Amino acid sequence: MRSEEWEKSDGEKVMDISLNELSQKLEEFAKARDWEQYHSPRNLLLAMVGEVGELSKVFQWRGEVDRGLPNWEESEKEHLGEELSDVLLYLIRLSDICGINLGDAATKKIVKNAIKYPAKGF
Amino acid sequence: MRSEEWEKSDGEKVMDISLNELSQKLEEFAKARDWEQYHSPRNLLLAMVGEVGELSKVFQWRGEVDRGLPNWEESEKEHLGEELSDVLLYLIRLSDICGINLGDAATKKIVKNAIKYPAKGF
Amino acid sequence: MRSEEWEKSDGEKVMDISLNELSQKLEEFAKARDWEQYHSPRNLLLAMVGEVGELSKVFQWRGEVDRGLPNWEESEKEHLGEELSDVLLYLIRLSDICGINLGDAATKKIVKNAIKYPAKGF
Amino acid sequence: MRSEEWEKSDGEKVMDISLNELSQKLEEFAKARDWEQYHSPRNLLLAMVGEVGELSKVFQWRGEVDRGLPNWEESEKEHLGEELSDVLLYLIRLSDICGINLGDAATKKIVKNAIKYPAKGF
Repeated sequence: MRSEEWEKSDGEKVMDISLNELSQKLEEFAKARDWEQYHSPRNLLLAMVGEVGELSKVFQWRGEVDRGLPNWEESEKEHLGEELSDVLLYLIRLSDICGINLGDAATKKIVKNAIKYPAKGF
Repeated sequence: MRSEEWEKSDGEKVMDISLNELSQKLEEFAKARDWEQYHSPRNLLLAMVGEVGELSKVFQWRGEVDRGLPNWEESEKEHLGEELSDVLLYLIRLSDICGINLGDAATKKIVKNAIKYPAKGF
Repeated sequence: MRSEEWEKSDGEKVMDISLNELSQKLEEFAKARDWEQYHSPRNLLLAMVGEVGELSKVFQWRGEVDRGLPNWEESEKEHLGEELSDVLLYLIRLSDICGINLGDAATKKIVKNAIKYPAKGF
Repeated sequence: MRSEEWEKSDGEKVMDISLNELSQKLEEFAKARDWEQYHSPRNLLLAMVGEVGELSKVFQWRGEVDRGLPNWEESEKEHLGEELSDVLLYLIRLSDICGINLGDAATKKIVKNAIKYPAKGF
């Protein structure tokens, strides 16, 4: 699988990337900087909690926020995208270092949730 | 892009899935259960923080944990996979509800990080 | 200093307790159960993050919440009090294990904040 | 109850302060800056999560940390004390805004825990 354009249901084309691609990019990134020595499970977990904190700060004084962030400046949305990404990247790296295939686990979790919470009409 | 087998550098084949696929699955999941009404940005953010808490509990009393989790039971690894997934799924859903393309943002963030922290020998 | 009744500005009397008292209670608690062996800084930090997750779950699907929690059931308020307490107790214990006097640090931080953010009219 | 010196079991005298005193200081602080308008429960909760992130960053790349932080610089300990304080101050303010007496709740929680986890020899 490789990063590619992806067509949404409304016809809009957006970039897409897979969890394994991101995992591989992060591994190469760490190797090229000799950072693998720091990437223990609990180090990465705490780094991720740090980024969750950064993400929370984006939302902290705003009161309720509407979907689609209608009144946000473009720069604020970009900042939010970076904080969401930071959480994602540490989460993927943590999974990888733990030997967990995150895409596989997430797919199974959705199936499990679907059984736990049956859809209406079933 | 669709979920498919993916060949790792060592030849092992593992499942792979893209961020857009997961995003679409989660949107369908919420629609089928009439849960979209609860999926505001700050509700989803707090739900994600809740799952980060669950994930932290998996690691809380263990002291330092080795990569690959050598002494963990299979059931513990499975539990860990579920908690990692819960964080991921809320993170993807939060991004989607905010109108942020997470795959795009994460790809850009890796490029930005690569400039901020140049690799050795560059 | 000992736990005692404390009179609020409106004359209402409420219980009060100091940070050192709580710290001492927690130390005795851990000693009596032979739990000191588990109370390393990062173990306690992750346990605290776990409780922050529990606390967030109390607020996750509610949308904006009014001050004083006007529409909450008594049992929900009690549950909230327990989750707030769990965060506090791990925070105090973490400080203690790190050799940080939390009351002293917090008092200094308020003074520092007052300089950083001068009050109106100053 | 007022802030005062407190004698530890080993005779060392340290500062002590009560939860109600801190709560009162924080209320005055917010009033003097006209910040009460921002202090809704979920705003304060997210601000606290932000500070938990800051606290986690202090510990993130260190591997296991020994009690008492034997190899930490004085400036690092001071920084840690500030991050611990930030979490505490938002936690107290959150409790206050929710109408929860934190000292009372914490005292009850310790009693409840003591019943749930009986001490050895009981």
